[in-house]
Parts: sequence; C-alpha cells; structure tokens
Amino acid sequence: MPPYRRNLPIPSVQRLPSYLRLLTELRARGEQVVSCTRIAEEFGQLSVQVRKDLAITGVSGRPKVGYRVTDLIDAIEAFLGWNKPTLAFLVGAGNLGSAILNYAGFSAHGLKIIDVFDSNSALYGKIINNRQVRSFNELVERARYLKETEGIQIDMGVITVPARSAQKVADRLVGIGVRAIWNYAPVLLELPQNVVCENVKLSESFAVLTNRMKNREEHLAQEEKLAD
Amino acid sequence: MPPYRRNLPIPSVQRLPSYLRLLTELRARGEQVVSCTRIAEEFGQLSVQVRKDLAITGVSGRPKVGYRVTDLIDAIEAFLGWNKPTLAFLVGAGNLGSAILNYAGFSAHGLKIIDVFDSNSALYGKIINNRQVRSFNELVERARYLKETEGIQIDMGVITVPARSAQKVADRLVGIGVRAIWNYAPVLLELPQNVVCENVKLSESFAVLTNRMKNREEHLAQEEKLAD
Repeated sequence: MPPYRRNLPIPSVQRLPSYLRLLTELRARGEQVVSCTRIAEEFGQLSVQVRKDLAITGVSGRPKVGYRVTDLIDAIEAFLGWNKPTLAFLVGAGNLGSAILNYAGFSAHGLKIIDVFDSNSALYGKIINNRQVRSFNELVERARYLKETEGIQIDMGVITVPARSAQKVADRLVGIGVRAIWNYAPVLLELPQNVVCENVKLSESFAVLTNRMKNREEHLAQEEKLAD
Repeated sequence: MPPYRRNLPIPSVQRLPSYLRLLTELRARGEQVVSCTRIAEEFGQLSVQVRKDLAITGVSGRPKVGYRVTDLIDAIEAFLGWNKPTLAFLVGAGNLGSAILNYAGFSAHGLKIIDVFDSNSALYGKIINNRQVRSFNELVERARYLKETEGIQIDMGVITVPARSAQKVADRLVGIGVRAIWNYAPVLLELPQNVVCENVKLSESFAVLTNRMKNREEHLAQEEKLAD
C-alpha cells in the first residue's frame, strides 16, 4: 500500500495553481508544448524547482521536448482534485463570503457552492451570484433534503463568519458530514481527525509584507549612513 | 553593517500574528508571564519551534520563568512593524475590498486605509466603513493633495481589482511612491526593485485543501480494500 501522502511538499502544491493558470493561457493561445525553463522564467524560479513541483503530479516531460500542455493541465487538475466538482456550503454571507461566491476562479477549480447561509435575518433571501441566502438554522435540514431528494452529499464547508461564531459553524458543518473545512475566520478550529481543514490567514500575508517593508527601510537607512 | 534580512524564515514570520493574537488574549486576562510550552500547546507545535520563531524578534525569555507577555507583544509588533501606522490606498471597492475595509484586525495591526478608489462610477461616493469611494482617476491628484496639505505619504497600495486591471493599478500606485503592494489579484505584477510585494493567492489555499481531501479519500479507500 502506497504511503498516505500527508507529507507532500506544501510549497510545491501551492505553486501548482499558478502554473495551471499559465498553462491554460498557453493552451488558449494554441501552444502545444512547454518546457520547465519557459514556466520557470514566467515565475522567476529555477527550472529544476519547476520540474520538482510538476513531478509530484506524476507527469513527466520528454527531454529536449518538454511537456504536452494538455497533459500537464490534466495531471495538475487531477492531482489537486480539480477535475471533479467539490460541493460546498458557505456560511457567512458578508463581504468576504460574497467575494468568494462571485470569484469565478474557484468554480473553475471545481468549487460548487450549493447553498449560502447566514445568521443575520436581514440577509435572508438576498441573492448573491444566483444563490439565495438561507438562515443558518436551516443548514442541517437543507443538507438532509439535498441528500434525500437529490442524492447530494456536501463535501466542504466554507466559513466566512467572525472568529467568535466560527467553531459553532464548524460543528454544524461537521454534523452534516463535510470532509473538509475552508476556514477564513481568524481562529483555530477543533475538528475531528477525519475532517481536513485549511485556514486562510490574511494577517500572515500582511505580517510578511510589513516585516519586509521594515527590513527594506532599515537596510536603505544603513546604506545612506554609510554613504555619508 | 548587519546583513539585509531578506532571508528570514518566512514560516516563522507567518506564525507571529497567531502568537500575537494569543498573547493579546492572555494580557486581557491579566496574565503576566507565558512559556513557549504554553504557546506551543495552543497551536499544537513543538516548544522548540515556538522558541525559534520568537527568537527572530530579538526577544529572549528567562529560563524556568518564560517571557513577560507585554515584552513579547511589544517585540512582535515592533518586528512586524505593527507598532506604527502603515498608510494605504485601497483600489477595488468590490466585496473583497469592502471585506478588508471592514475587518478590524488589520487596523489593529497598524493598517490605516486613507482612501478607497474604484473605476466603476456606480460606486463613486459610496461609503464603506466611513470612507467614500473615489474615482481611480483621482488617485494621483489625491496623493499629491495629501502630501502637500497634510504631509501624508502613502506607504502601501492594496489591490483588490480583477486580474486584468491589476498591473495598471500597480503602476499608478508605484507612481505615487508606495513602497509596498498587497496584491489580492490572481496575477504576478511587474514592479521596481524598491517596491516590496506580497501576493495573496487564495487558490493556493484551496489547492492544498482539495489535494489533502483527495489524498485522505484515496488513503481511506485503500484501507477499506485491505479490510475486505
């Protein structure tokens, strides 16, 4: 039995969507073959790193020739599980939730948000990208209805509520049998072992940026001192 | 001259905001001292990793005693540059831009979004969290006005426009002298060397999540096969 690939190189997995975006553009332009060097140039990376990243999908290029664009697209989409729909409930119909609902990119990656819920009654019935916001209290009932009448099992819960409500929402989603949580709330969730979770921490990105700004300025200040 | 710290361990920098969130809670509860072990337990990490992460801020704990909570908070905020305001323009007043404007967390980290711009005239004058949406065409003029009348120099541009408009927006922001770009558009920007940029790629997070879902299921399927 092949090992459970829990320990895949996360940075490599994270780079695949960017490669996929480029490859889709190349395919649209009718280009049939692409080399690691070509991809590496686009992202200012080492060709060997790109080859390593692509290798985790199981695809292999031909020396001197490179990769067939369509093969590469298929391999990446299959590896990421983007070649089949991921059925989701989104909880939290505020600005962030609406942004996710309206961003076409995710649906291109297979994300199908079936229903949207919020606990703010002022939002009930509001239409966001063709979906009507439902009461959070209907979530369990709605999941049961979808399963019984349409045989639909919700795979993923997208949480875009404030931190204080996130755990309660997560528990409800676990209760309807989601196998994954995409958490945008700035809080760590307690989840059963069999539910995978990815936390989107926008503060992490802000921290890296402001820290780099600070270091850059200290560096420039030092250089000016030396120049005096 | 100390080396330009371009090569700081990014994952350590990324973990600091979570530590800071915990420390702020502890301070609010009146706790004065904290140990690496205590922090590590909270985030399911190794105590030695937490010590390593905190060390990059220059703060050091006392053996057996630990760190003074306030010292740690001050050290992290200073290290991240969160102890002073970062003045920003935000371009793109859609759902994502509004979510960022309304999220109190960032202002707690020093982000002060001075003005908001959009090229959609339907949004001009709209009030989002006490800011009036201005025409993107006013951006340069507005930056000049702020500098001349109030001595305000905009440090950062936050880009929440669609991919196709992002480079044009970035060029305009570079033109008014921002030193950092926080880019939410799914596209790589061409920027001068002296401008630091952080790309928020939500697809990266979605890729890691769906890939882990897929691996988890393949793993379970294999286990079931073996169980038969």
